[in-house]
Amino acid sequence: MPNTQTVQTLRGMLGEHVQTTDEVLAQHSRDISWHPASLPEAVCYPTSTEEVAEILKVCHRNRTPVVPFGAGTSLEGHIIPYRGGITIDLSRMNRIRSIHPIDRDCVVEAGIKKLQLNKALDPHGLFFAAGPGIDASLGGIAASGASGANAVRYGTAKENIRALQVVTATGEIVKTGSRVKKTSAGYDLTHLMVGSEGTLGIITEVTAILHPLPEFSGVAVVSFASVQQAIDAAIAMIRQGLPLAMLEFMDEVIMQVINRFSGSDYSETPTLFLELHTEEELAPVYQRRIHQIVRENGGKDLIWGTSPEERARLWEIRYNVAHAILAIRPGGDTMSTDVCVPISRLAECILEMKAILEKIDFQLPLFGHVGDGNFHISPNIMVGQSEEIELLKSINDELMRKIIPMEGTCTGEHGIGVGKKKYLEMELGRGAIGMMRSIKKALDPHNILNPGKVIDID
Amino acid sequence: MPNTQTVQTLRGMLGEHVQTTDEVLAQHSRDISWHPASLPEAVCYPTSTEEVAEILKVCHRNRTPVVPFGAGTSLEGHIIPYRGGITIDLSRMNRIRSIHPIDRDCVVEAGIKKLQLNKALDPHGLFFAAGPGIDASLGGIAASGASGANAVRYGTAKENIRALQVVTATGEIVKTGSRVKKTSAGYDLTHLMVGSEGTLGIITEVTAILHPLPEFSGVAVVSFASVQQAIDAAIAMIRQGLPLAMLEFMDEVIMQVINRFSGSDYSETPTLFLELHTEEELAPVYQRRIHQIVRENGGKDLIWGTSPEERARLWEIRYNVAHAILAIRPGGDTMSTDVCVPISRLAECILEMKAILEKIDFQLPLFGHVGDGNFHISPNIMVGQSEEIELLKSINDELMRKIIPMEGTCTGEHGIGVGKKKYLEMELGRGAIGMMRSIKKALDPHNILNPGKVIDID
Repeated sequence: MPNTQTVQTLRGMLGEHVQTTDEVLAQHSRDISWHPASLPEAVCYPTSTEEVAEILKVCHRNRTPVVPFGAGTSLEGHIIPYRGGITIDLSRMNRIRSIHPIDRDCVVEAGIKKLQLNKALDPHGLFFAAGPGIDASLGGIAASGASGANAVRYGTAKENIRALQVVTATGEIVKTGSRVKKTSAGYDLTHLMVGSEGTLGIITEVTAILHPLPEFSGVAVVSFASVQQAIDAAIAMIRQGLPLAMLEFMDEVIMQVINRFSGSDYSETPTLFLELHTEEELAPVYQRRIHQIVRENGGKDLIWGTSPEERARLWEIRYNVAHAILAIRPGGDTMSTDVCVPISRLAECILEMKAILEKIDFQLPLFGHVGDGNFHISPNIMVGQSEEIELLKSINDELMRKIIPMEGTCTGEHGIGVGKKKYLEMELGRGAIGMMRSIKKALDPHNILNPGKVIDID
Repeated sequence: MPNTQTVQTLRGMLGEHVQTTDEVLAQHSRDISWHPASLPEAVCYPTSTEEVAEILKVCHRNRTPVVPFGAGTSLEGHIIPYRGGITIDLSRMNRIRSIHPIDRDCVVEAGIKKLQLNKALDPHGLFFAAGPGIDASLGGIAASGASGANAVRYGTAKENIRALQVVTATGEIVKTGSRVKKTSAGYDLTHLMVGSEGTLGIITEVTAILHPLPEFSGVAVVSFASVQQAIDAAIAMIRQGLPLAMLEFMDEVIMQVINRFSGSDYSETPTLFLELHTEEELAPVYQRRIHQIVRENGGKDLIWGTSPEERARLWEIRYNVAHAILAIRPGGDTMSTDVCVPISRLAECILEMKAILEKIDFQLPLFGHVGDGNFHISPNIMVGQSEEIELLKSINDELMRKIIPMEGTCTGEHGIGVGKKKYLEMELGRGAIGMMRSIKKALDPHNILNPGKVIDID
């Protein structure tokens, strides 16, 4: 058994940094979605890039699959070791190497989580913006090409990562770029690694782009009579170039779910959540414009929160979405669609989907990052009940048929993992899949890096 | 001779779209830099992506080198066919396929030039921002990962290209991404192609990101007593987040060259050129802040131009830099360094270089995109005089020794081409070069796509 040999060799090299207890294996057997669990054969906890390189050399020699693991917050099974082998848990590589306030970047180990980093950046008046609401690791945000609510203003992982340090399948350490604002030096290895989901290399260090903390921050919640009006208001805000750090849409179903979970009494109609980041001097100008757009599109009950407490209270609603969905039924899991379309097609896309959803006797909350054209239909699924999974799969198939003529994507921010492989080819075609496969084979000839994710090789 | 066979086959397929006259071959034998000329064996003028695919199939079969050619404005020999073969001139593929005002993007054929595109976008109140001052093609801007003065506000080619259509070495047509603001669908083939300089595929279609034309646009020129003061003022402007569309530095040498060329009488001291893009309502706020920063850093003779005529008159100075350098000596050519460092190290880097340059008895103008940390030392070189070329090469070697500990890059915007290959390995190391080589071999197994550029395979 080559994998058993791998575990023995690694234990000899790394001692207590290799663990095989049932509890540790179980912790690394699943993500936070409906995808079924699968155990690794051992979990390594390296403390340096050099150790990661040593692990890879052993795994490459023995053809042992390697799955990188950050905070465990994937939604498409990226971190589940369906072919066994070794999981590399990077949580002990969570040091900050350097912070550069003038250049507005920092260099961190891949295992650091976003909240820990932002706490350290706070005294410098800076923050890292990309990534989901849940507390993910920087390496995971990079590897999955994640974004989240801030992307409308600050961009996704792609726009917020300057360079990476990566360990290849053969255990070589690669610097993908320099710590500069711009470069035309060779192939863009940084962006090739961002979103490659651990299938082309293990990210061990991230040079992250930072943004200044806003002088003024204000959150607003506003209700609309229809989806069309809410989306029209959102598009008007985008077109005016308002400095919105978030622009979130919630349908009447998710507002019901939230009210039930939080004991709140928000209007159970299409709702926008938004956050304005600007300077004190300019805040009244932008607030006035937001009010005007809301009025012109029939919005009502606009609530502003500008103190830290008010903002936190309003955002709690949005942050509780995942918990509120899980609370619909104890024991259920989240299963989420993640399409993104050009914003000119968003209202049409959501309205057509809602017409279909309304005919289905199942609670199907719809919400999303409307400023980017990205939305989720995200029900509570019982994993044991295959008809529920089949239902959401058929909804996703229906969505894909709609969004392909709209030039949309099957995943705006969750990634492909194991859950969306068939949609990737539907979206981009055989040529793109062929090119991705050639790159994968060139960089990982024995298919040991997170095998079976993104594209199938064998 | 397989290449002769290729030319015959292509002529049979494409007729008059294949040309071999001395004039046409000479036009495609050089770029606008000092790099020596070399003739292609034929030039193809395809009118569709399908034709490009057919050409590639023939070249792949016969192992004939293929060089893509846009507007011919490269600075590092990218488009020079040093191994003969076929040049594909994309200038007849210059149609606009679609403009999407709400989504702020457009789909164009790769041969369209930036000025033609921006003229068509003007009625929509939009423009394409990336690329150099000289009128380059969209395909060329994408392929070379170009930027230019606008990058400080609007980003480089990387941030302004949403997706591409590419023809592979084997003649397959690949869609690299969807027309959406964000996606996590598979490997980022778009960014892999941006900056690959025609060595991984021929770009035939560009989905470009557009920006709204500013309501207010104001240009300012301001002189400083020292390089340090000029750079300090620039960094202060960046740190305040002023909406500057350009932020350009010119040293006293280039100001002398400009005055001589234009008959102007600007102060021959370190100078900043900047352009403010904002709304009418906010312009006074930002102008006031610029004046304050200039005052605090000892700047003087600040001139504002806000009408189209005044702006054009002031920018003419900056746009004339290339011509002014060529006018130093008739028959000379431009040879430019292109390093970029983190902006926190920029003043130190420029000052150390100027201390070296001052000891050399040769006019060495220094200017650059200071907001990005990118600057050029750009003398007029006589190609016949090898000691002049050796001089600038030794200056670039000296620069590289300085910028590597500063975490800089050998090229901020011109690309590697043939001129900066040795610096690429100095900058990123063997690991990165090995990864680039693996990708190149996987996507172009016979090394027919712009061979000898970016990295050496054989």
